[in-house]
Amino acid sequence: MSRTRYTLRCINCSRVYEPDDIQYTCPQCGNRKGTLEVVYHFSKETQWIKEEKKGIAKFGDLLPIDETLLPKNVIVGDTPLYSSANLAKEYKVKEVLIKDDGKNPTASFKDRASIIAVAKAIELGYSDIYAASTGNAASSLSGISAGSSVHAHIFIPKSAPEAKIAQMLIYGAQVFAVQGTYDQAFDLSLKIGEKNDWYCRNSAVNPYLLEGKKTCALEIAHQTRLQLPDWIFVSVGDGTVYSSFLKGFSDLKELGIIEKIPKVIGVQASGCDPILKTFRKGEPFIIDDVENPNTDADSIGVGKPRDYLKACQYAQKYNGGFISVTDQQIGEAIMELARKTGVFGEPAAAASFAGFKKLANSNHFSPCDTIALIITGNGLKDIKTPQKYLREEVTIIKPDD
Amino acid sequence: MSRTRYTLRCINCSRVYEPDDIQYTCPQCGNRKGTLEVVYHFSKETQWIKEEKKGIAKFGDLLPIDETLLPKNVIVGDTPLYSSANLAKEYKVKEVLIKDDGKNPTASFKDRASIIAVAKAIELGYSDIYAASTGNAASSLSGISAGSSVHAHIFIPKSAPEAKIAQMLIYGAQVFAVQGTYDQAFDLSLKIGEKNDWYCRNSAVNPYLLEGKKTCALEIAHQTRLQLPDWIFVSVGDGTVYSSFLKGFSDLKELGIIEKIPKVIGVQASGCDPILKTFRKGEPFIIDDVENPNTDADSIGVGKPRDYLKACQYAQKYNGGFISVTDQQIGEAIMELARKTGVFGEPAAAASFAGFKKLANSNHFSPCDTIALIITGNGLKDIKTPQKYLREEVTIIKPDD
Repeated sequence: MSRTRYTLRCINCSRVYEPDDIQYTCPQCGNRKGTLEVVYHFSKETQWIKEEKKGIAKFGDLLPIDETLLPKNVIVGDTPLYSSANLAKEYKVKEVLIKDDGKNPTASFKDRASIIAVAKAIELGYSDIYAASTGNAASSLSGISAGSSVHAHIFIPKSAPEAKIAQMLIYGAQVFAVQGTYDQAFDLSLKIGEKNDWYCRNSAVNPYLLEGKKTCALEIAHQTRLQLPDWIFVSVGDGTVYSSFLKGFSDLKELGIIEKIPKVIGVQASGCDPILKTFRKGEPFIIDDVENPNTDADSIGVGKPRDYLKACQYAQKYNGGFISVTDQQIGEAIMELARKTGVFGEPAAAASFAGFKKLANSNHFSPCDTIALIITGNGLKDIKTPQKYLREEVTIIKPDD
Repeated sequence: MSRTRYTLRCINCSRVYEPDDIQYTCPQCGNRKGTLEVVYHFSKETQWIKEEKKGIAKFGDLLPIDETLLPKNVIVGDTPLYSSANLAKEYKVKEVLIKDDGKNPTASFKDRASIIAVAKAIELGYSDIYAASTGNAASSLSGISAGSSVHAHIFIPKSAPEAKIAQMLIYGAQVFAVQGTYDQAFDLSLKIGEKNDWYCRNSAVNPYLLEGKKTCALEIAHQTRLQLPDWIFVSVGDGTVYSSFLKGFSDLKELGIIEKIPKVIGVQASGCDPILKTFRKGEPFIIDDVENPNTDADSIGVGKPRDYLKACQYAQKYNGGFISVTDQQIGEAIMELARKTGVFGEPAAAASFAGFKKLANSNHFSPCDTIALIITGNGLKDIKTPQKYLREEVTIIKPDD
């Protein structure tokens, strides 16, 4: 258990549960609506950061796990926060920060959640863990469980990028490729996972993932010495990553470490933007799922987002919002980001930059604004998509040319 | 210029040059034989490390460049050094350290050299820079020069892995794919680069690359708090990376920071091991080039190694050595490394582990030995090779299974 006492609260009915009494979602509200949120009971002894520790263990008092259970063979977190003078100049803002989370062990942000899930599985005595995923959560779980006592089982849509599937197999996970969407893989995984008594690392089912993900916000607070950016742009699929930023900052606010919470803008693909549409309609947040997600940004091609309710609630409470960008804008953003900053992000990662560009181009920012872009995955995870948008070609020459 | 005075010494004839008087190789001995070595004239003011700085700037006094010229949009170095309890137990040694240099900005060790080359090009007033490469040095130069004032031109063999080529184009470099080997691309690049007056980032031609590369050794010294490993395993192509470890440690020894230099074992692919063979024959080191390099480990498929002489001289002086491993051993090492440690390395990276395994399996080590494996590139850079050796497959299922 965590060093900080916590309870679990249903985001729909607000019932509160003791962690020993419940594992996944609120029995009254069921899956999806009844997603649980971790509520800490901070004390005077709570330290928001322990600088001498490595990776997310720095934030042990704000995690729902005994930090000594975190696998130690790799370090999750401690990813760089760059300042891009080129982008600040180009888009006429004070500073553009780039949080390069593609430098996590499996090259994605999702490692922050996977390490918590693996530690929780160990705490609870499981030997097996499973996840449904568009790709990154799965390759992440495969990599983070490699070398641990827990074996990973993966459910992905058959269309997941080759490099991500290769990662899973190389790490030794059992991989089921579902002939259907991520959403169908998700539902199927719940059925098979439950039958086999495997621990579940699925978004919005496992209440602890978001707590791992929020460490990115905590790192930004640390790396900026609490001079937080005004705006944060991050891509949105299921909605958990989006909420994790606001949860991280709200934990810090509750502790009295910060006063103001940045505006967090969730970026969706225009071919799959159910959370944007739901948020725009306003309360009560009732989701219209997208039957056939249509985007090159596989990581956010989520038509039936499981954590939409929390994302909408958080956005409303903390003055956040959502926008959408086209695949063309994402493709161009990958290239521009790489060329102007040296950071090569996967499509969903560059979507955050595309979202920022869209607002910047409509003069949304003041010259005093500081922006942070969350690069959630390394570009090497999907080279096919940018190749579609490349105008340049290799020049073939002979050795004696 | 560097804050530490340095001269350039020919490794063949030992003539010494002032940096202002010479750019690449010794005019007396010519390319390849006449590779220059940076010799520092350390003073009492020389500090081997400045801990408050980020990345390789920590070692500014031991670099041939004014550290303020290093591009700042990304951080090169500061890669993690993991300790693998699983591997130590399996191979019955005290500790196995894993230096995960695939976490550099473009996911390879080569960034350590590219950032020095780009800084040098800026210092010398060049607007263009070129490199011949098996792939990593090229994608590295493309990424590190992106966002700088210097434009990259790349010469690779047409057979370089797709992901590496994609990286180069996405970063905006001009890419020439040569219908031939790396060695032919190298010779052609010299011709075209010289004609166009581009700055040269080619192994063994540019004397400064090795100085960037040696920062990996310096980081290991820092991360182990000067309790250096007994053995270091690193893959060998041109030979520069190999030498860089011994140069880094010998600089520290000269400064009185360490007493003993680890044994550095260079690992070659058995289908392309000219340096191993040359070293075994002994002095004078005369190289027999390999006409047709035959290995899956593209990064070390170097039949005409340009920096063989320095590598052999260093190995002899510091009691190092070379071994070779088969492609099958490399393929298996990729998988074993990923599964037991969570670190997924590209073929040449995992070759270091394959080399260690080969010696461990013949009882070469004592239970008191500490080993460091240098993981020179991330596995996502080449997924085709491990896919050849995977026995596991994806299980295809239907959504209603």
